Amino acid sequence: MSEPRIISIKKKILGKNEQLAQDLRAEFARHGVFVANLVSSPGAGKTELLRWTMAELRKTHNPAAVTGDLATENDAARLLESGAPAKQILTGTMCHLEVDMVRNAIQEWDLADLDFLFIENVGNLVCPGDFDLGEDLRVMLIATTEGEDKPLKYPTLISTCDVVVINKMDIAEAVECDVALLEHNVREVRPSSELFKTSAKTGEGMDVWLGFLRARFAEKVTQGKGS
Amino acid sequence: MSEPRIISIKKKILGKNEQLAQDLRAEFARHGVFVANLVSSPGAGKTELLRWTMAELRKTHNPAAVTGDLATENDAARLLESGAPAKQILTGTMCHLEVDMVRNAIQEWDLADLDFLFIENVGNLVCPGDFDLGEDLRVMLIATTEGEDKPLKYPTLISTCDVVVINKMDIAEAVECDVALLEHNVREVRPSSELFKTSAKTGEGMDVWLGFLRARFAEKVTQGKGS
Repeated sequence: MSEPRIISIKKKILGKNEQLAQDLRAEFARHGVFVANLVSSPGAGKTELLRWTMAELRKTHNPAAVTGDLATENDAARLLESGAPAKQILTGTMCHLEVDMVRNAIQEWDLADLDFLFIENVGNLVCPGDFDLGEDLRVMLIATTEGEDKPLKYPTLISTCDVVVINKMDIAEAVECDVALLEHNVREVRPSSELFKTSAKTGEGMDVWLGFLRARFAEKVTQGKGS
Repeated sequence: MSEPRIISIKKKILGKNEQLAQDLRAEFARHGVFVANLVSSPGAGKTELLRWTMAELRKTHNPAAVTGDLATENDAARLLESGAPAKQILTGTMCHLEVDMVRNAIQEWDLADLDFLFIENVGNLVCPGDFDLGEDLRVMLIATTEGEDKPLKYPTLISTCDVVVINKMDIAEAVECDVALLEHNVREVRPSSELFKTSAKTGEGMDVWLGFLRARFAEKVTQGKGS
């Protein structure tokens, strides 16, 4: 009985988020900021990958990040170690970020000064799926410690991702992860996604990942000038 | 503006769940079934711990399990390897189990034949918190691969748990997990919880864990006879 009401309210929230996301996306485009939204289970290594990514990117570009957690400023503190700007978003009891939280978090930054904005979502394989944050790229991290069948068990969120990063490659063997099977399962659920294999600890695969980000940024800037 | 409506609907859903949970709890008590609800991130090792736990417990007792996932029957298949009964609950897009799903899943089982019912919740560190499933014990698994600050970053769910199991102890060293710090952070958020350290792979800590479960079952049965 109450279901139609819930669905109608959910549609309203999502509709409002969608409108704000389109506005923010237009603003990012105007300023040539390339935006990536990173989703994963808790502990898949988003913060460490981002810390590494921003430390490298800032040699040639201007990256920044916002990071969502229910509690603690730990992740923002770790991201700041990259030397790039970072802000914490605290969600309290919410299991995902919404676009107005991102907009509030970045309001003190001048977008004209940024090249990349990374949004580290709350660690959750379900909730972030419905919420567009104005990003160019949605990236899912899957750690080799999580088991090969995660893509099959959480198909909803991965179906919305453009990129899948298999992370913690350095301990794949120690945890007996069948990486080929994991890749196969990613392709099964999301055939069109780009796939990277990384270890933020050893640096494995980071050059290819960084090259991809730089190329996508260059593409966006070129397109922006053309329009 | 729409928030009060959402809150009132959420209260209604939770209120209904709470009532059903009390009914189911009474039914479990009547039949002397000890019930544990296992929560964790995706990939923390709930299924493997349960498979091992049920294989051991069935030497002396009658355990069974239901396991929730958005998709696939993989976990039920793995749990059946223990030799004990297991059923899959598919939640579609939902990030937690509700009590009516559990009730439906077990309806073909005669509770009089069971000693233990394990409920493996959907892998999620936020959503399952609000939903009582009629359990005696709520158990959170944290894998050594997830980072020492997980308890601090997800305080809401862990605050509802009676037991915390630090799992994947066999690779703690390889992933450079500071187990003492992780334990400290668990105590910080949830001082009253029982704490176990296990590896379903090597068997480390499993005797203590099994001993605890058997003792809690014996306690429940004794109490039941007294009432």
